[in-house]
Formats: sequence, structure tokens, C-alpha cells
Amino acid sequence: MKKVAVILSGCGVYDGAEIHEAVLCLLHLARNGARYQCFAPDKPQHHVLNHASGEESSEQRNVLTEAARIARGDIQPLSELNADDFDALLLPGGFGVAKNLCNFAFKGAECEVDKEVLAVCKAFARARKPAGYCCIAPVLIPKVYPAGVKGTAGTDAAVADAFMAMGGEHIGCAVTDMVEDERHKVISTPAYMLAKNITEADTGIGKLVKRLLEM
Amino acid sequence: MKKVAVILSGCGVYDGAEIHEAVLCLLHLARNGARYQCFAPDKPQHHVLNHASGEESSEQRNVLTEAARIARGDIQPLSELNADDFDALLLPGGFGVAKNLCNFAFKGAECEVDKEVLAVCKAFARARKPAGYCCIAPVLIPKVYPAGVKGTAGTDAAVADAFMAMGGEHIGCAVTDMVEDERHKVISTPAYMLAKNITEADTGIGKLVKRLLEM
Repeated sequence: MKKVAVILSGCGVYDGAEIHEAVLCLLHLARNGARYQCFAPDKPQHHVLNHASGEESSEQRNVLTEAARIARGDIQPLSELNADDFDALLLPGGFGVAKNLCNFAFKGAECEVDKEVLAVCKAFARARKPAGYCCIAPVLIPKVYPAGVKGTAGTDAAVADAFMAMGGEHIGCAVTDMVEDERHKVISTPAYMLAKNITEADTGIGKLVKRLLEM
Repeated sequence: MKKVAVILSGCGVYDGAEIHEAVLCLLHLARNGARYQCFAPDKPQHHVLNHASGEESSEQRNVLTEAARIARGDIQPLSELNADDFDALLLPGGFGVAKNLCNFAFKGAECEVDKEVLAVCKAFARARKPAGYCCIAPVLIPKVYPAGVKGTAGTDAAVADAFMAMGGEHIGCAVTDMVEDERHKVISTPAYMLAKNITEADTGIGKLVKRLLEM
């Protein structure tokens, strides 16, 4: 039975992990017979947004504590994730990736990646263990893998340009499909970068998870 | 195309709506060709629990605002839900149902139901429009429907006893199945009252949503 590490970035599309994508990742992992363990960085969120009004709140929330809601409490700090213990890595999207796991939302191609996140993702890359990145999470790919690595975040021109400015090769991709870099064993799918509804996100994520477990 | 109203009770199994169940409800509605609109009461949560540690937090959060995370911002206050505009009603579970939509978590069979929630659920019952209740949400059924109404929350003896003390007929049910009261057009499934993993919850909820849309 394959064991997959899932990195969450909070709980909620605008300031954390995209909830539908995260749950669909877990669903497809379980359906395909894999076990999973969720992880998140134990640090403050960049900010908290009221998802009903769109307004910024004065609250302070912790990425790990909020991500625990998606994981039904079964979550570990990212600092405890050892790539040796897992067969593959999976990152759902959401603005939390671009605000909490790195600062792509604010700095684009000039972004820095959280040190723990970078170390973990690089450990999977170095061990040649497959990794799947959904939605906006693929912006991490050029920071983790050597120049020329292939990935997709869909068809957004600004994100594609930033992906290429960071050294990656961005490939346009439909929401129901995925892009595979065979050499580096990394796959990506647009999910809610393009999905107009949950079934579209489900199709792409289903395809990505199936492939992740075959690789 | 059928239109279904979904009532959420926050965001997170221990103090709000169970996230996997809520997302699975939306997924199966969309997959079966239905449209949905999420609603939640615009009021403070009973409390906030840290889902990583299990400890109670001093924070105050609003049921609607947190539920908006699951709905990706597309949510309306429960006060605006008119049963005339929808073909069916669907309630995922989570402790939020037993803490925010009613106080079953504290008072058991003596519980009171939030007035807005009760009015909405009764409106669907009165209009003989089908309703589906998942996980712990079926404890609302005996409060909404006449005595003798059939429902299930799985196999938990204390919940079954309370269900019967409130006037309902509790029927034991496997996690992959559902119970239907044909007379009152209300169906229920145990979901995470019994599910040991997300695929088990998915099977029961999938069956319930399919039936809800056929009724």
C-alpha cells in the first residue's frame, strides 16, 4: 500500500488550502488504495480573509491549526515530514500555497519559498519520488526542480510568464487534464485555476492522483 | 436541472460542518446534474475548537463566515432560504449541527433547534419536498417531522435512544447505506458517525444524494 504525504496550507481558498481540492486529493488517494498523512507548517497564516465578504480580518490564525480542520485532526507539523517515510508527495492548491507556503501572491516570479516547504519538496525531488502539484501549487515547481522542468497552472498568462521567468517550462493545460515531467517525476493539474465547478476539478485531480500512484 | 439548498453549520468536524461530508455532498450533487446553493445561519458559533490539539479556543467565529470557506464564498444567510425556490434540502453533518444548528451535543433528546433552521426544514417537509440528512444531522429529523418518522445516525445506541425519545423511529444502518422514510420523503445516512475513512463516507453520501434527486 503506497503512502503519500499531503501538504496543506490552511483551510479556505482565499487564505489557505482550497477545501474542495484538498478533500478531492484525499478521496482519490483513498479510492486508489493509498494511505495518506497530512502535514502543514506550524506558523501564522499570512492573513485571514472573511470568505463571505472578501474583507481582511484582524484575526491571527495558524496554518497547521486551520489545516487540521480538513484533516479531521490527523495532521503533523511539516517539520516532522521525512521523505524517506513516503512514496509520493501531493499538494492541493488555494491561495494559501501562494501566501503561506511561499509569497508568490505578492512577489510573483521573485517569490521566496518557506524554508521547511522547500526542504521537503526538494527531498522528494532528490529521492526521485513522484510529486503532484494542483492549481496554483505548481508555481513551486521551478523553485524545487532544475531549470527546464515542465509544469502547468492552466492557461493564465501572468502565471505562465512567472513560471517561465523562474526557469520552468510552462505548458498550457485543460482543467480535465494534467502535465507530466517524466524526467523529474513531477505532475501538475490546473484544478480551480480553471475549474468552473467541482466536477471539473474532480476530473483533473482524479487523473493526477491515479498517475501519481502509478509513477 | 434540480436545485438543492445545502445547510452548512460552520467549517470543521469538531465545531462546524464536517468538511469531507460537505464537499462530498456538493460533489455528488454536481455529478448528478443538480445545481446547489449553500446557506448557513448568520450567528456566532457555539465555540471554536483547535482541531489539531482538541483544545477550546477563546476565539469567536461566525457560522456563516466559516461555512463560506467550504462554499468558496458563494453562500447566503439561512434567513434568505425560501423552500419555494428549491427542489430539495441537504444537510451534511459535523458537530456544528449538534452545537450550532441545535444543542443536541449538550442536551440530547431535550435539545432545542435553532428557530431559522427549524422553520426552513419544516417548510421543506410541509411542501413535501425531499430532504437528506447526513451523519449526526438526522437528530433534527424527529423535531421536523411527525412522530414515527424513520431515520438513522448509524449504530450508536445513545443517539438511537435519543432519536426515539424525541418521537422518531431509529433504524440501524451501515455506513454504505441509507434509510428512507417514503411517507415523509426524508432520507438519512450515517457518514462519519460510522465511516472509518473518506471512501466509506463517500459511498453512503453518493447513494443518498442520488436518491434525493430521484425522489
